[in-house]
Amino acid sequence: MPVATQATIKTLTPEEVIAVGAQIVLGNAYHLFLRPGVETVDRLGGLHKFMGWPRPILTDSGGFQAFSMGSFRQVDEDHIRFRSHIDGTEYRFTPELAIANQQGLGADIIMCLDQCIAYGAERDEVVRAMDRTHRWAKLCYDAHYVSPAPTYSDNTRRQALFGIVQGGTFADLRRESTEFIASIPFPGYAIGGLAVGESKSQMYETTVQVTELLPADKPRYLMGVGSPEDLVEGVAQGVDMFDCVLPTRVARNGALFTRTGRVNISNRRFAEQDSPLEEDCDCYACRNFTAAYLWHLFKAKEVLGLRLASVHNLRFILRLMDGIRQSILEGRFEGFRRDFHHVYRPTDEATRQRQKEKWLAARGGV
Amino acid sequence: MPVATQATIKTLTPEEVIAVGAQIVLGNAYHLFLRPGVETVDRLGGLHKFMGWPRPILTDSGGFQAFSMGSFRQVDEDHIRFRSHIDGTEYRFTPELAIANQQGLGADIIMCLDQCIAYGAERDEVVRAMDRTHRWAKLCYDAHYVSPAPTYSDNTRRQALFGIVQGGTFADLRRESTEFIASIPFPGYAIGGLAVGESKSQMYETTVQVTELLPADKPRYLMGVGSPEDLVEGVAQGVDMFDCVLPTRVARNGALFTRTGRVNISNRRFAEQDSPLEEDCDCYACRNFTAAYLWHLFKAKEVLGLRLASVHNLRFILRLMDGIRQSILEGRFEGFRRDFHHVYRPTDEATRQRQKEKWLAARGGV
Repeated sequence: MPVATQATIKTLTPEEVIAVGAQIVLGNAYHLFLRPGVETVDRLGGLHKFMGWPRPILTDSGGFQAFSMGSFRQVDEDHIRFRSHIDGTEYRFTPELAIANQQGLGADIIMCLDQCIAYGAERDEVVRAMDRTHRWAKLCYDAHYVSPAPTYSDNTRRQALFGIVQGGTFADLRRESTEFIASIPFPGYAIGGLAVGESKSQMYETTVQVTELLPADKPRYLMGVGSPEDLVEGVAQGVDMFDCVLPTRVARNGALFTRTGRVNISNRRFAEQDSPLEEDCDCYACRNFTAAYLWHLFKAKEVLGLRLASVHNLRFILRLMDGIRQSILEGRFEGFRRDFHHVYRPTDEATRQRQKEKWLAARGGV
Repeated sequence: MPVATQATIKTLTPEEVIAVGAQIVLGNAYHLFLRPGVETVDRLGGLHKFMGWPRPILTDSGGFQAFSMGSFRQVDEDHIRFRSHIDGTEYRFTPELAIANQQGLGADIIMCLDQCIAYGAERDEVVRAMDRTHRWAKLCYDAHYVSPAPTYSDNTRRQALFGIVQGGTFADLRRESTEFIASIPFPGYAIGGLAVGESKSQMYETTVQVTELLPADKPRYLMGVGSPEDLVEGVAQGVDMFDCVLPTRVARNGALFTRTGRVNISNRRFAEQDSPLEEDCDCYACRNFTAAYLWHLFKAKEVLGLRLASVHNLRFILRLMDGIRQSILEGRFEGFRRDFHHVYRPTDEATRQRQKEKWLAARGGV
């Protein structure tokens, strides 16, 4: 799922997002709650109509951003308290409000309010966050399915509410959390609390621990992941859905995915390249422009460069997922996975860390 | 002509520029000379291929920007000397180099090197600049038509070179300049040195003085103009072609053209408007999104907002020109002109001045 943080996939129109092959996009309830506001979106006909997106949308609960972007945030037993990063106004997200917000926005899939803990937290802190996440999951389920408050438009009952597994990288806690969340009959399950600083191998191990315990007939969603290599590995571990800002975020820094790994279009070697960035890429940028033109647009700081880079990276990711799906249907996923890793060289940990720090510094929070 | 300063109409793809109805765009030789460089553009197949634009292009000579954007610039008898605003490298534009640069870029219409003087200059300064412009016009004509140096690709001979009239706001100098430039058989003529600080009435008067002396069977191009009201008046004074960054530049500040005048989309009154900015506008933005969504995109500082605003303003301007052409063909231009001014309220001088100063301050030069 490409990420439409503020009701737009950054730099792109809905038609362009459809053209890259997106089946569904993700919206951030935290951002939309603050601006333009849930009531406004509801009054304007819901998020699909507001942003002109005709396909499914998933919204997150807003909890993750409230905790990571808001200031003076504090998690209590029954709510997350935070101040808006825009104007400092204080708000509280309760499980019930998180559901009401998402009902008002009108996405097709909505998420439980959970507490995501950074990697490296003490075990007792992880336990507390997990227990809280479990209590909130029940409250969210009840608020959405059992005794819904009909605050917003009447089609809310058709929204699918997903539960979220927490438990950090502690194997026993992940087991406990998966069993608890899976005991609630959500139509889908998400794995939260990963891609928050742990190593790749820890992420992969934890993912497979969880997916082995989740029902086989319901979708599994690994939140906030990820890079091309993480998508391939995530599928290998039994995951069906992913979301990540990575393809569009790194695109705006000129980092473009290619079959063999990420390249930076600002590199002088592209200045005179009279052919597309990738000859066999079918994206709008590669079909219509040379790498030299992309290089020029980035050097000249032209917005069209950000657009073309975003289109290319999204198409790369969605074509990768297409390839994965096709290989599964044809019973040759393991071969696909081996071939992918043989050719694609992931960005090394140090580079990734530098990029992440730069990004965190730029926005003053996760 | 929408302006593609750096080989892109800011924020838009070629398809989008075609969709708004542009028949021709303008590229800036100064910018393209510095980056990516004329030789690079020539090697990559010329400006049309480089930027993916399938219709005509006009390039300016680069002189105006060399003088207004370069630093330490100085005009001598046979060249403009300046330092690049990018890296401080010193360059000289001679008439011959200005022609060679534009031959290398490969536009369909190219311009003579001239010297544009700011409004308010002393008469003797205006005379010197005019005389220099006249000498350079002959040198440019010779360099392009009489004894061309075959530096670049062989289709350069099909480029049309336009002459440029100068002479400030002095009626006798404008007459002298028009007669001189019109005596050289250029395929088209431009009016330079206007929209540089003089009043609207001075601009209109000077324009009509010049057009009355220009041959009736060749296109007349009023450089750097303009606003909707200036386009209507320019046509009334006998002008055929215009270029201006105004529609796209003010769009990026949220200033959008409507039938009754400019509005700012960031104004709170649009926050809940559940209808397009203009009901009868056929642009992509108005056909697909509400004013409330545009308001949100600008508030959230989303790039898509800049795109939709640029599309809307260009479509407004090009639809205005369509209307003008149609009214001329049907012999009812004066009625069209009267109706336009009856409904459209121009941005007042004070607001325009503030906007101009803000813009000048932001880019440190004209």
